[in-house]
Amino acid sequence: MIRRCFQVAVRLGRHRVLPGVPQVLPRLNPNSAFGSSTDSLVSRFCLKKTDLKDYALPNASWCPDMLNLYQEFLEKTKTDGWIKLPSFKSNRDHIQGLKLPSGLAVASDKSDWRIFTRCIQVEGQGYEYVIFFHPSKKKSICLFQPGPYLEGAPGFAHGGSLAAMMDETFSKTAYLAGEGLFTVSLNIRFKNLIPVGSLAVLKVDVEKIEDQKLYMSCIAQSRDQQTVYAKCSGVFLQLQLEEESSQ
Amino acid sequence: MIRRCFQVAVRLGRHRVLPGVPQVLPRLNPNSAFGSSTDSLVSRFCLKKTDLKDYALPNASWCPDMLNLYQEFLEKTKTDGWIKLPSFKSNRDHIQGLKLPSGLAVASDKSDWRIFTRCIQVEGQGYEYVIFFHPSKKKSICLFQPGPYLEGAPGFAHGGSLAAMMDETFSKTAYLAGEGLFTVSLNIRFKNLIPVGSLAVLKVDVEKIEDQKLYMSCIAQSRDQQTVYAKCSGVFLQLQLEEESSQ
Repeated sequence: MIRRCFQVAVRLGRHRVLPGVPQVLPRLNPNSAFGSSTDSLVSRFCLKKTDLKDYALPNASWCPDMLNLYQEFLEKTKTDGWIKLPSFKSNRDHIQGLKLPSGLAVASDKSDWRIFTRCIQVEGQGYEYVIFFHPSKKKSICLFQPGPYLEGAPGFAHGGSLAAMMDETFSKTAYLAGEGLFTVSLNIRFKNLIPVGSLAVLKVDVEKIEDQKLYMSCIAQSRDQQTVYAKCSGVFLQLQLEEESSQ
Repeated sequence: MIRRCFQVAVRLGRHRVLPGVPQVLPRLNPNSAFGSSTDSLVSRFCLKKTDLKDYALPNASWCPDMLNLYQEFLEKTKTDGWIKLPSFKSNRDHIQGLKLPSGLAVASDKSDWRIFTRCIQVEGQGYEYVIFFHPSKKKSICLFQPGPYLEGAPGFAHGGSLAAMMDETFSKTAYLAGEGLFTVSLNIRFKNLIPVGSLAVLKVDVEKIEDQKLYMSCIAQSRDQQTVYAKCSGVFLQLQLEEESSQ
């Protein structure tokens, strides 16, 4: 149970570009964690050996469209530079060995922390999704199948569940493409409702990286691209995750 | 398990104002469901007698700030025109006896459907919230306490969980203030992170109702208003929920 109301608040946008630092990235110091290359970020993110459960793998609830497209992109990981991102229960697992920026103290209690988009662990009932990332093109594809616990209007996914899925896809893309850590803004236009149990394909592009911010766009649509579910633009703030010292 | 990918898609924004119909509501026909008064919508929404569980009631996970402000607003329901909205497991319960607009067929299978913001039923782990609505002022207050299953950055609520909470508060406000049913757009600017387990107070105002759309604003902040978590504007589309015939 959580009874305390924490006093901590982390202000976004207070990290300003220093005078004299170019407004357009890439960064000046490739050796610092804050100037990490996409390749090094990807290899840090996609652990070769881990006992952590990867939730971004097919299960019996996936619809045929989702399974087919998953296999298609899995092939592209061998030939076309795409990478399948693992998806652990908590962002704490994703950033193991890394230190959060100052002001972001991590509580060390024994709570069962979960990243929001993996909050429901019963297969097919909540979020089913997998993200593929293309490092050199700085783009992502998220295959998203909302379950019946994500309902809004009867039979359809809640707009907020799609908003969160877009935010999360932006988030992973922003981190890998340029150490974008925090959402500054989301601007979503909904076009059609997503039927529960069906596939929505989210395509994310990094439009520009400027003034310590990543500007991204997302379109969510049916597999045949005949139905647009929503369009979204998002801005993320770049912040440094340092390596933790071994002391 | 959900294996089928549905073919249904519901296009938003295809319901246009008829030529000659004034661009500014209230509506012309107070007898139709689509011209319902706020009072009749509220009385339809807040069932006097029901066996359905109301999830918007205090439990042991609520932090003192949340409990205190809940009591404060509960007092205002007696003296100041505020109404505490019930919150059932599914929107299907909220619209009992009402027919969705054409094109929105409700699946009648035995799935365990849940409204997204009640997807986690373990007290304190997911969404804890309660919405109060003021019919004549057309405004709402949502007391929101994110649990550890709503995490984004370690120790803080995922931006997407706040986006969904704002969308849901808009949604209930839009319906009661003017039969607003579907989110057309959300525009969110994030300012500070919400610590997991703490209270965020969302204030929603209906700014105008025009051209079959409701325009709303929301600010999410700490109880003392010293920390703004996010600001959001939202547009909702008005659509008619008809009474189901008893045949």
